[in-house]
Amino acid sequence: MSTTVFRTQRRIEFGDTDMAGIVHFSQFFRFMESAECEFLRSRGLSVKLEWEGETIGFPRVSAACDYVTPTTFEDLLDVAVTIDRIGTKSVTYAFEFTRAGVVIARGKVTSCCVKIGPKKQIEGVAIPASYRARLTATTS
Amino acid sequence: MSTTVFRTQRRIEFGDTDMAGIVHFSQFFRFMESAECEFLRSRGLSVKLEWEGETIGFPRVSAACDYVTPTTFEDLLDVAVTIDRIGTKSVTYAFEFTRAGVVIARGKVTSCCVKIGPKKQIEGVAIPASYRARLTATTS
Amino acid sequence: MSTTVFRTQRRIEFGDTDMAGIVHFSQFFRFMESAECEFLRSRGLSVKLEWEGETIGFPRVSAACDYVTPTTFEDLLDVAVTIDRIGTKSVTYAFEFTRAGVVIARGKVTSCCVKIGPKKQIEGVAIPASYRARLTATTS
Amino acid sequence: MSTTVFRTQRRIEFGDTDMAGIVHFSQFFRFMESAECEFLRSRGLSVKLEWEGETIGFPRVSAACDYVTPTTFEDLLDVAVTIDRIGTKSVTYAFEFTRAGVVIARGKVTSCCVKIGPKKQIEGVAIPASYRARLTATTS
Repeated sequence: MSTTVFRTQRRIEFGDTDMAGIVHFSQFFRFMESAECEFLRSRGLSVKLEWEGETIGFPRVSAACDYVTPTTFEDLLDVAVTIDRIGTKSVTYAFEFTRAGVVIARGKVTSCCVKIGPKKQIEGVAIPASYRARLTATTS
Repeated sequence: MSTTVFRTQRRIEFGDTDMAGIVHFSQFFRFMESAECEFLRSRGLSVKLEWEGETIGFPRVSAACDYVTPTTFEDLLDVAVTIDRIGTKSVTYAFEFTRAGVVIARGKVTSCCVKIGPKKQIEGVAIPASYRARLTATTS
Repeated sequence: MSTTVFRTQRRIEFGDTDMAGIVHFSQFFRFMESAECEFLRSRGLSVKLEWEGETIGFPRVSAACDYVTPTTFEDLLDVAVTIDRIGTKSVTYAFEFTRAGVVIARGKVTSCCVKIGPKKQIEGVAIPASYRARLTATTS
Repeated sequence: MSTTVFRTQRRIEFGDTDMAGIVHFSQFFRFMESAECEFLRSRGLSVKLEWEGETIGFPRVSAACDYVTPTTFEDLLDVAVTIDRIGTKSVTYAFEFTRAGVVIARGKVTSCCVKIGPKKQIEGVAIPASYRARLTATTS
């Protein structure tokens, strides 16, 4: 879809590790969410925001990660975020984590766009055209 | 204050540990909250609930823990919860974690009672008399 | 593969939720690991243990989850664990989370068997026949 | 003790929040550890490292936090780290979290110095003089 790649970095914290001496596998989902939010922030967007008079959000409908090489405390990971697929109501981000060029993990997260009502009730809606335009602009 | 002790157990999970091979110190705050909620649930209470027509909650104002003996994956901890102090607007719980009688950690958490408005605005209020009565009843 | 289903339960904690008012998506990976370990423990096994003179472990090589229905604080989830596939060196578990019969989430986690050396170096090995036999026994 | 203040920043992530819409209280302990490690890293030190032929570490013996003002997703916190007290075998760090000058939370963490043996056995030891000198140097 978009050929734009958003790049950020993540320093592994002590609390990210487990007794195997490496990053606990569940933490990569935190890392993916954080990188996605940083990408969105760089475009003036967010996973939850007021948009054209509505509160919209992007709850996750699926998430997956492949673990290629272990990584541990104080490692500095490079994170590449790309839009893997964007549909009418959902968006899938792909993430690649590398350390000095070595692939650590690859993941994908799919979120759907919802309108959030005053009592937190949610309703799936199409991604607003203006949000989509800003998300997929090739020059950010 | 109350001499009643609520007792529960907690099995250490792999994800609770860190690369030192033991439970990460921050997890004990999760364990304390969980034990507090289990204690409250046993009395028909909660840290966030509808009560006499209002939404009340108990945000934390302070938390502390002393770490006495390391503990690790698959250990089964005994957790003792007591009400350390109860004031007009706040309550302090004390927690003792033991493993086969050996003290692992001791902690305290203080929460204050707040009324939560429709836009999530919070206002400190006295703990409702009926809530307090149920919380401190010596026979649960 | 195995038609045996291991069943356990999980009570949602306050700290499992996020500002959307529901369980944070990353927590399901913690729940899966915990259920897997409970299943293994019920069979005298673990994700890290001494086995026939070696230290063996099961680092994760992939993990995925589909989120079907939101769930929140104090909900009690039923968790069903099945062995989805078992190869020479790896095992895939499938998990289904339900609440009062309603599907909340479904996930899979694949781990590979490794021998862990004295300096934590790891080497992929075949799952020991005796471990496999205990894991897949139809009467536990 | 030291009048040197180490300053860093922390962006609140979605996964740091809970259903009250604010940062979960336990996360501040992760933030403190991370800031401590960043401070140590800035001085060529760490909470676990090889030092003069030994592996030394700094397990936590106590931790505490006072929560002053709520903070939430995407807030950018300023974090100030100071050495509150340094004894023969232990060190206490003090942390202050502010947002645009408003105090969010204040905490302290005390760690003791241990020598870690080849089988992970730990033994309390004096903080090595060379480590202490680097930790407390007024010009970093």
